Amino acid sequence: MTLFRRFCRTFRVNPWLARMLIVFATSGGGVLAFSDVKSENGMTFDSSEADSKKKKVVVLGTGWAGISFLKNLKNPSYDVQVISPRNYFAFTPLLPSVTCGTVEPRSIAEPVRNIVRKKNVNIHYWEAECFKIDAENKKIYCRSHIAGNLNEKEEIVVDYDYLVIAIGARANTFNIPGVAENCHFLKELEDAQKIRRTVIDCFERASLPNLSDDERKRILHFVVVGGGPTGVEFAAELHDYVNEDLVRLYPKVKEAVKITLLEATDHILNMFDKRITAFAEEKFQRDGIDVKTGAMVVKVSEKEISTKEVKDGGGISTMPYGMVVWSTGIGTHPVIMDFMKQIGQGNRRALATDEWLRVEGCDSIYALGDCSTINQRRVMEDIWVIFRKADKDNSGTLTIKEFQEVLDDLCERYPQVALYLKNKHMRTLVDLLKDSKGDAVKESVEVNLEEFKSALSQVDSQMKNLPATAQVAAQQGSYLADCFNRMEECERNPEGPLRFRGEGRHRFRPFRYKHLGQFAPLGGEQTAAQLPGDWVSIGHSTQWLWYSVYASKLVSWRTRALVISDWTRRFIFGRDSSGI
Amino acid sequence: MTLFRRFCRTFRVNPWLARMLIVFATSGGGVLAFSDVKSENGMTFDSSEADSKKKKVVVLGTGWAGISFLKNLKNPSYDVQVISPRNYFAFTPLLPSVTCGTVEPRSIAEPVRNIVRKKNVNIHYWEAECFKIDAENKKIYCRSHIAGNLNEKEEIVVDYDYLVIAIGARANTFNIPGVAENCHFLKELEDAQKIRRTVIDCFERASLPNLSDDERKRILHFVVVGGGPTGVEFAAELHDYVNEDLVRLYPKVKEAVKITLLEATDHILNMFDKRITAFAEEKFQRDGIDVKTGAMVVKVSEKEISTKEVKDGGGISTMPYGMVVWSTGIGTHPVIMDFMKQIGQGNRRALATDEWLRVEGCDSIYALGDCSTINQRRVMEDIWVIFRKADKDNSGTLTIKEFQEVLDDLCERYPQVALYLKNKHMRTLVDLLKDSKGDAVKESVEVNLEEFKSALSQVDSQMKNLPATAQVAAQQGSYLADCFNRMEECERNPEGPLRFRGEGRHRFRPFRYKHLGQFAPLGGEQTAAQLPGDWVSIGHSTQWLWYSVYASKLVSWRTRALVISDWTRRFIFGRDSSGI
Repeated sequence: MTLFRRFCRTFRVNPWLARMLIVFATSGGGVLAFSDVKSENGMTFDSSEADSKKKKVVVLGTGWAGISFLKNLKNPSYDVQVISPRNYFAFTPLLPSVTCGTVEPRSIAEPVRNIVRKKNVNIHYWEAECFKIDAENKKIYCRSHIAGNLNEKEEIVVDYDYLVIAIGARANTFNIPGVAENCHFLKELEDAQKIRRTVIDCFERASLPNLSDDERKRILHFVVVGGGPTGVEFAAELHDYVNEDLVRLYPKVKEAVKITLLEATDHILNMFDKRITAFAEEKFQRDGIDVKTGAMVVKVSEKEISTKEVKDGGGISTMPYGMVVWSTGIGTHPVIMDFMKQIGQGNRRALATDEWLRVEGCDSIYALGDCSTINQRRVMEDIWVIFRKADKDNSGTLTIKEFQEVLDDLCERYPQVALYLKNKHMRTLVDLLKDSKGDAVKESVEVNLEEFKSALSQVDSQMKNLPATAQVAAQQGSYLADCFNRMEECERNPEGPLRFRGEGRHRFRPFRYKHLGQFAPLGGEQTAAQLPGDWVSIGHSTQWLWYSVYASKLVSWRTRALVISDWTRRFIFGRDSSGI
Repeated sequence: MTLFRRFCRTFRVNPWLARMLIVFATSGGGVLAFSDVKSENGMTFDSSEADSKKKKVVVLGTGWAGISFLKNLKNPSYDVQVISPRNYFAFTPLLPSVTCGTVEPRSIAEPVRNIVRKKNVNIHYWEAECFKIDAENKKIYCRSHIAGNLNEKEEIVVDYDYLVIAIGARANTFNIPGVAENCHFLKELEDAQKIRRTVIDCFERASLPNLSDDERKRILHFVVVGGGPTGVEFAAELHDYVNEDLVRLYPKVKEAVKITLLEATDHILNMFDKRITAFAEEKFQRDGIDVKTGAMVVKVSEKEISTKEVKDGGGISTMPYGMVVWSTGIGTHPVIMDFMKQIGQGNRRALATDEWLRVEGCDSIYALGDCSTINQRRVMEDIWVIFRKADKDNSGTLTIKEFQEVLDDLCERYPQVALYLKNKHMRTLVDLLKDSKGDAVKESVEVNLEEFKSALSQVDSQMKNLPATAQVAAQQGSYLADCFNRMEECERNPEGPLRFRGEGRHRFRPFRYKHLGQFAPLGGEQTAAQLPGDWVSIGHSTQWLWYSVYASKLVSWRTRALVISDWTRRFIFGRDSSGI
């Protein structure tokens, strides 16, 4: 053991040993290793001379998008500053597990400094919150919110050459009265901890001797608002927690527990396949979780929650509750709202970016993850320039050959075109043109602008916004890092599609999301999964798939080992009920 | 795995299976098993008819003393109510490890309900805080402090036949200005979590770019007040945390970190052997921990701490600091102060009990642990009644034989007598008498009252208060439980020493503390231990002794496995720095 311990410690205490080896081996750069070692010593924060020539990249946020960007950034020619009020990355898909103590909060948190210090890129992290973005002067304004006897009013002003906004979203209360004051949310690790403590508090409070039966039932009524994957998973976890562990410890209040799931639309999990929705609804019914669909929350008071029937006249009903968890959708951070007003996007929910994740109207600002949406350009907006670009001989009509030459670029620039063809079961654009021209012989097809327009008229209907998921954010982060890594290279040799509205080619290929599937844990060691190609898998084996996918996706070997050992602890000892 | 999981679950979900087996096997009591199963169902809190004949025992507190009492209480003829604001027992010796994230807070917390539900005794737990004890009417008044949308003002009034006070102590600020507002304490799990977060906050704050070097040094100056085992262990843990883990993550602020340990007396660890004190002081000096002895804190402001030299005129000096941890001694809870006034003990620090842990002046109230001290009766107070009881033939003098007959009772009732003999290297009381009579022949020794008095005059100097440690509290709890278990039996057949001031014998033997040794972890995998018989052991091997003793002392297999896996995690991955 002592030997093993020493070995571990040597590598922990002298990580630069390992790092230097790697730096020398991979980049063969003595200079690099030198600058790396140098930055470990010395107290000054002034950039060195070499650094001052580097482009300054400021990253706001340490969630999925930000961390994925940082992990994949490999080009040492940037000087990166990461600013976030949280000095760790939280593996959010396991948040519902934290609410019930299945997983420890710190097992799914990886310190940002741990993630960035292994890199050859110069990355500084500062624990502060950005409250203003000044795009004109390329500055951001931050404040440190660290508690204790420190001056909290100091401002930090940071210059940037490139700004990467990845601060995520906050819970959306839809301005429904009482929600912000009385509901729990499930966005941060602290939220999950607070929910766990409140569940225990409810059980302790319900066990006190001086209560009426009605009051006891009220306290043990847990309401989950929102039938999306998070709400459903939380309701399922809570049900398991109560039935597998808490009822043993609080046998006298067992009968009074009730879980209600409220959903405004007709079904829970409505972004999933119908088979999954049906299975989930049936399982919840068997479990005794009361699923109320078509019920819209209109008010939450200190002890009661009021809902309105969406259909049938809209009667209002009111239920007493002990705890409400609100998980309905995402809203915008104030700093983003402020910034959107500044750049003329005031009436939007999230920052609009182009297909390369650049904020519209701001040349050197990128936005990714939940705080942004990609504004996919419509084919119809550009139909004339597309036609003109394709019509190389300026004949006023397009031949098949002319068309085939721009086909790949068109599909790459406007992914809805490819999607439209696929959904219509057409193999190429030529089929599309033929379709619009009737049964003319393939070789001789030639279309004018109007015919071209009508052939593509339905194409834009295929456009869809990307969901606000960790998967999208992570892919955006790694895409953007890849662009930054090859910025100069691609400046010289652009690899993107043809610029229909300009000359030459785009520097990069636009961002393309690849859906890898989605899980919906339903409790009782059962999980539903929707995999690419509309594969659906439900049951115990899917739960094990869930365990292995999530374990493999965790950000570090440390968190991986910690989460797996948490799962093992839970299998053996169950979840505990200490109010800490 | 599935089989194993099912096996675990069967025992978790149906723990009464296991329990019933045990109940049937050990007590052969069908009635018992019946009442046990019955209490699992039903919502009512009314005591059943059988229960109403049981004596009501109320236990205040779920610390070492209270939990040790509950764990050892085996007599089913009591109806026990446990009242504490914390629904878990915390293994406090590992608190300093929690401050640095070596051990997870919940790994050392065991839910009270988990501890008490395994028992055949009827035990209810209520999460509430006692704010008033009414000894006259045998009632206590409690309040539930559970947060959330619950009515916090409700009072719960509980009757008792026997009251066991085991609520511990709180940190003692000695009314030094600024201590309560600006210092951290180390009594509860929440304190430890807060300290960990503050340490990380200090490092994050010191890493911000807009600070002067002086300000950075101030923020990273950690001051520990109190050179007792807790303060020393915390300083050592913090030093390890900083030097093994944090400096790698915050390389730029490494040089600015400083740890100062303040102690008012001449040496740290002054309750330990001098060899340990010397070793600790030397090790701390090597480690760069600044130990300032003879320094008394007189004031703590928001950013500065002022100390006064105890010797040499008492000059006052002031240091800037980033965090102060206050660990100097224990103070009294308000409810105890209030109760002491009520029973005429108003000028004391802790509740005075007799040698049977009964609060002086209250027949059915017991106090144990840090909230009480045993008021050992002096021999000199009783010298006359002792003489008279021993002098069976009323001759006015004691013969050796008469003396030897009361000898064992005397030593049991007044443990200072035995201690005095041992320290003076006398084998029996007879030697003592001989000593006072000169060289007379042993057989013919006969003493009168005055001679008897002078022989025992120095005996009371051997009396010592017990230290306020977990060990004492735990032994008191198990002692009292043993008394409760055999209450009726001992009423019939008293087993205690002769009543010198009354007739017959005491029901029980008085409480006797058995010191099993004490550890002082000094960091860097080195620990000092003072074992019974003045054995001293220092070094790496003692650290392993520490690991094994603490692992074995943990309250349940669950916490044991959790703490050991936490230690393993730390060996492999180090401590993390996420601010959660």
